[in-house]
Amino acid sequence: MSPEEFRQQGHQLIDRIADYRANVASLPVMAQVEPGYLKHALPQAAPQQGEPFEQILADVDQLVMPGLSHWQHPDFFGYFPSNGTLSSVLGDFLSTGLGVLGLSWQSSPALSELEETTVDWLRQMIGLSGAWSGVIQDTASSSTLVALICARERASDYALVKGGLQAQARPLMIYTSAQAHSSVDKAALLAGFGKHNIRYIEVDEAFAMRPEALAAAIEQDLAAGLQPCAVVATTGTTATTALDPLEPIGRIARAHGLWLHVDSAMAGSAMILPECRWMWTGIEQADSIVVNAHKWLGVAFDCSLYFVRDPQHLIRVMSTNPSYLQSAVDGEVKNLRDWGIPLGRRFRALKLWFMLRSEGVEGLQQRLRRDLGNARWLEQQVGAAPGWEVLAPVQLQTLCIRHQPGGLEGEALDRHTRAWADRLNASGAAYVTPATLNGQWMVRVSVGALPTEREHVARLWEGLQQVVKG
Amino acid sequence: MSPEEFRQQGHQLIDRIADYRANVASLPVMAQVEPGYLKHALPQAAPQQGEPFEQILADVDQLVMPGLSHWQHPDFFGYFPSNGTLSSVLGDFLSTGLGVLGLSWQSSPALSELEETTVDWLRQMIGLSGAWSGVIQDTASSSTLVALICARERASDYALVKGGLQAQARPLMIYTSAQAHSSVDKAALLAGFGKHNIRYIEVDEAFAMRPEALAAAIEQDLAAGLQPCAVVATTGTTATTALDPLEPIGRIARAHGLWLHVDSAMAGSAMILPECRWMWTGIEQADSIVVNAHKWLGVAFDCSLYFVRDPQHLIRVMSTNPSYLQSAVDGEVKNLRDWGIPLGRRFRALKLWFMLRSEGVEGLQQRLRRDLGNARWLEQQVGAAPGWEVLAPVQLQTLCIRHQPGGLEGEALDRHTRAWADRLNASGAAYVTPATLNGQWMVRVSVGALPTEREHVARLWEGLQQVVKG
Ligand SMILES: Cc1ncc(COP(=O)(O)O)c(C=O)c1O
Ligand SMILES: Cc1ncc(COP(=O)(O)O)c(C=O)c1O
Repeated sequence: MSPEEFRQQGHQLIDRIADYRANVASLPVMAQVEPGYLKHALPQAAPQQGEPFEQILADVDQLVMPGLSHWQHPDFFGYFPSNGTLSSVLGDFLSTGLGVLGLSWQSSPALSELEETTVDWLRQMIGLSGAWSGVIQDTASSSTLVALICARERASDYALVKGGLQAQARPLMIYTSAQAHSSVDKAALLAGFGKHNIRYIEVDEAFAMRPEALAAAIEQDLAAGLQPCAVVATTGTTATTALDPLEPIGRIARAHGLWLHVDSAMAGSAMILPECRWMWTGIEQADSIVVNAHKWLGVAFDCSLYFVRDPQHLIRVMSTNPSYLQSAVDGEVKNLRDWGIPLGRRFRALKLWFMLRSEGVEGLQQRLRRDLGNARWLEQQVGAAPGWEVLAPVQLQTLCIRHQPGGLEGEALDRHTRAWADRLNASGAAYVTPATLNGQWMVRVSVGALPTEREHVARLWEGLQQVVKG
Repeated sequence: MSPEEFRQQGHQLIDRIADYRANVASLPVMAQVEPGYLKHALPQAAPQQGEPFEQILADVDQLVMPGLSHWQHPDFFGYFPSNGTLSSVLGDFLSTGLGVLGLSWQSSPALSELEETTVDWLRQMIGLSGAWSGVIQDTASSSTLVALICARERASDYALVKGGLQAQARPLMIYTSAQAHSSVDKAALLAGFGKHNIRYIEVDEAFAMRPEALAAAIEQDLAAGLQPCAVVATTGTTATTALDPLEPIGRIARAHGLWLHVDSAMAGSAMILPECRWMWTGIEQADSIVVNAHKWLGVAFDCSLYFVRDPQHLIRVMSTNPSYLQSAVDGEVKNLRDWGIPLGRRFRALKLWFMLRSEGVEGLQQRLRRDLGNARWLEQQVGAAPGWEVLAPVQLQTLCIRHQPGGLEGEALDRHTRAWADRLNASGAAYVTPATLNGQWMVRVSVGALPTEREHVARLWEGLQQVVKG
């Protein structure tokens, strides 16, 4: 495709995307298609000759669009929001259009330096001290994997340059809560710790980790000759946005020399609001933090911020320095390939920069406060309605709710819950996420998609009251 | 930013990108800035109020553009190409604009199904049998890490659900050549094997792994009570595009039950040319393969294809299944989160699909043949010129060259080589990558950027002859 054809088709694509964002509310939120619908409609092999671009776009309309669940929809209350603000979308377009890579500082200096600057802007916005250095990773899953590998290497005195984890004498232990995100488990397993060496610390009635239970588990493991290695605490768990108490957890981790990784993938966004900062009191005791700018905050996916207190340790664990990647300025610059797993890197700072400048800190704060207000409003409605229950403290923008018509319990209640959630989702009127809490199904309502206003939350509440009737 | 403002600014951005691609040849290829140039020019903190978009774009022009090294430039001969064809750029724009995520099939069915289909199209294009299943990862670095973790778990009988790698009795061993990419080393270290358990197998005069040396190393380790685990072979090494002989390597791996991972990050693209398929004869014996569609082939970064023969094993190692990610159709669909490390996934198949359809298989073949022809032409020029040497067989589109004025050797020769490469790069006329081979510096010339025609290669050759004069 020539630049001139790109220009022409690009203008049409911009209009399509603008129209999509303007009219997405009119589409069913969740895709209403069956497994295999697309696979079976597409040719079995790539075309030998190029096809006109119009044909591709026609297939987008007929085949792709019906198979989307719309994350940028005002009635999207599923998972956690993955907001792609349109300013950040333009930043991402510029990144893809320029097509430069950050293998090293030299391979595109602006890429590395803008990342350093914008990540530092965000550090200040969320109230972290100047002792933190950050980098953009793709996802919280990758950030947490990097964190646990770094913890492993600190505890093993850099076994990676020697016999590796397989030379470890006393098993290294990981501590987290059963409410932690599945990515924590996955990271520990991929890093080689083994399921038997993960301790799931008990939570309190608000689903937050109990520090006494953590301390006891560590003592017990020490007594058994095991070697405690890292604690993963969560600020804003996935099921209920519970807040593990970082102050006491941090003290315990420090006392035993353990790595403390804080998963603030979701709630990190809220830290741009001074009134929310209490949620991670004690954060400065951590060794690493992950904050997903691609969730509620609104940077187009993927943009996960990973902060560390000791970048030299990170680099020592992650760095490779083959001759073909060396350059004359290496002593003076940050080579971000040594801050994460991938070598090639997109110019992701552009989308963060575009959003921060276009919206401004106050614009972002305003939107997040709107969502917190909407969640509290919904909490009041649900809390006051007979037969309904709010199952966990609403600390942020997510509610865990259940409808319990008289007498329904156990499996019958689960069937009722899953049935109405499925009906609601299948109707296309809203998208909510069922999940389990204390072994019983409930429904998560996660407020905070970009275009979600009070009216949408009010309509959801009406819809919920209708849908439970069957 | 509202959809209407996005529409207006988006049109301007499309024009900018079209102009950039049309005029990039007039810019110096390598950025001519000093470390810190941008960091020091930017404000120290994010703005409180939003700024007009025009101001952001003005800063792009004044501050960002001068700090880019241009990978889409016709005089870019550095590293390996990272081509972003404009059709794939539009596919990526659509992905970012839609802002949907593939946490599970249900969270956007089209995302998973289009990925399955387009990856299978590419499988056929590169001549792999139907026994392979593929998925899109971000980079070859991540793909190789996944491969070595899967190898580790097969060899340890799924230690991850038990005591992990730390419970391993006999050390698991990794075999690769010293010519393998640094990402292989990095993957082995991150996966916990340890540097002492990586064996670097000797290469022949064409820089390809010697199968006899591999067999001997395995026997030696077995005799020493170690446990051979995986071989990483490369089709198209980074320094010289050497081709490890997969047929004998595969036989040895099979005989000992070892995992064979093939790094075809670069040369995988060439497999769309039937005349190049001999390069990976024996590939069907591998367990996993990585092919970077974001390199020479031309899908806008990031798009690394990871193929496996046993997807059930991959899923068993990578899967997590918390309640909030379950859906009614889970038995019938592929949930691609279980095929790699990250949970959240972009709709990356769109850019692959757009490119394959817009260019067609023949269009892509034509471009790659153009580049192979240009590299052979340059090989002839350099080979015939007094004082110049081509240091490795030119199998693909990369040349390893050195200029050796009478008598110059050792460190003096290295100084000469690095000096002229730096002069060339600093001039902005071309971008080449110096690297070491057999302990001596040489210069890699990697042909194959999208807009690079014979005239650019001819001009490079003139420039090379000039620049070595000092
Ligand atoms: C608390 C928490 N941590 C981690 C993740 C994983 O995020 P990612 O998709 O960026 O890996 C999530 C996703 O919802 C989350 O809620
Ligand atoms: C042979 C080989 N393998 C792996 C890589 C790493 O690629 P990525 O940046 O996708 O991790 C490269 C990069 O040039 C390469 O040449």
